[in-house]
Amino acid sequence: MSYEEMAIEGRNAVLEAFRSGKTVDKLFVLDGCQDGPIRSILREAKKYGTVTHYVSRERLNQMSESKKHQGVIAYAAAYGYAQVEDMLQAAAKKGEPPFLVLLDNIEDPHNLGAIIRTANLAGAHGVIIPKRRAVGLTATVAKASAGAINYTPVAKVANLSSAIKELKEIGLWFVCADMGGSPMYGLDLKGPIGLVVGSEGGGVSRLVKENCDFAAAIPMAGDIDSLNASVAAGVLAYEIVRQRLGKP
Amino acid sequence: MSYEEMAIEGRNAVLEAFRSGKTVDKLFVLDGCQDGPIRSILREAKKYGTVTHYVSRERLNQMSESKKHQGVIAYAAAYGYAQVEDMLQAAAKKGEPPFLVLLDNIEDPHNLGAIIRTANLAGAHGVIIPKRRAVGLTATVAKASAGAINYTPVAKVANLSSAIKELKEIGLWFVCADMGGSPMYGLDLKGPIGLVVGSEGGGVSRLVKENCDFAAAIPMAGDIDSLNASVAAGVLAYEIVRQRLGKP
Repeated sequence: MSYEEMAIEGRNAVLEAFRSGKTVDKLFVLDGCQDGPIRSILREAKKYGTVTHYVSRERLNQMSESKKHQGVIAYAAAYGYAQVEDMLQAAAKKGEPPFLVLLDNIEDPHNLGAIIRTANLAGAHGVIIPKRRAVGLTATVAKASAGAINYTPVAKVANLSSAIKELKEIGLWFVCADMGGSPMYGLDLKGPIGLVVGSEGGGVSRLVKENCDFAAAIPMAGDIDSLNASVAAGVLAYEIVRQRLGKP
Repeated sequence: MSYEEMAIEGRNAVLEAFRSGKTVDKLFVLDGCQDGPIRSILREAKKYGTVTHYVSRERLNQMSESKKHQGVIAYAAAYGYAQVEDMLQAAAKKGEPPFLVLLDNIEDPHNLGAIIRTANLAGAHGVIIPKRRAVGLTATVAKASAGAINYTPVAKVANLSSAIKELKEIGLWFVCADMGGSPMYGLDLKGPIGLVVGSEGGGVSRLVKENCDFAAAIPMAGDIDSLNASVAAGVLAYEIVRQRLGKP
């Protein structure tokens, strides 16, 4: 795999890559595999003239980065990073107040993928990650995103606090996930908003938190400290969805 | 590790195991590791008279099942399965309507762990999984649960549909996660309830779905099919929490 190529692994991820119009350069399929999802992938490959190779399970296992290829690996141009500006334009085009998800030091690729997936389904216009320390858009992230990475733009910024300050100037409000914050139900999350979620261990860093307008707490009834980062992001993103829908 | 022993890996998980009163038989700590969390673990070990071994990183890596031991592995009695009856008694003792989470064919240990973690924090009284095909309570599940497995009981049942039928007889209502269901906000989820979540690929199986009283849909604005199973479980569990809290 050359530096500008990217492996896409798993049936959902590969099918979504085709359907979203991504240029798939090569396709590797488990020899003898003929079920419905694989046939759909082969139809897409034929439609786009993608070179298809039938290979053994050993070969696929060897090629696989995520070790969950489900019989199919595709190589395409690497997932490109978007600009924050593109996200704002996408929101404007849809006539929606911007809804961005910012991740402070999420290092687990499964969590990043699951959060991109959630952002897509919650109707967020993009995900912003810091350049430093954050995990990149790898095959594992793409697989965990279940194809959402093809639709939901991800931007990398040098400094999350600076990005927040700039976006505040054009009218966005920022809410961070924080156990010490106000219960999320009592906050007004309907306007142009950035949701900031921190890492599992440390939460949102102090400086980033200080730049947020609100700190939102998810009610916790249990014995342990915190939710999984992607679950917490999901619960908060859907509180924003609920308020935007005007429910109940 | 003998058949009745269980490895607990990672700082949070080991510390929680001690604090929840679990009998830790042996503790393995990375030689020379002296930071705060490790010192807390060593204090607990001393308090309970746990045999502690200082070992090399190579040895720990070799012992580790999850490959994320963070310098500490403990061996304790395996996580025991609870009975559904215990969960109902726990709810009665707290004076709360029962709130159970049922998992239909969740096979990914990270998802199972994250859902046990969510169940704990959302105040659910237990998690029910089917005997067949489901993942067991392994070290990976325990680590992903961030210690919640020590507090939130997990029961294994021979047949999920039969368990639902029996629980309906004593007054529980069952809601399943289903994209084709009614929007979750419009359903009354305040009473004694069982939340049924299916696998990523197939959702809740037909027979189990037929035994549920409601099908609840999470609003989806995006381009892809579904949320990660543990995120979907989190969003639905917290809709139950919101309704029970009478918010907003």
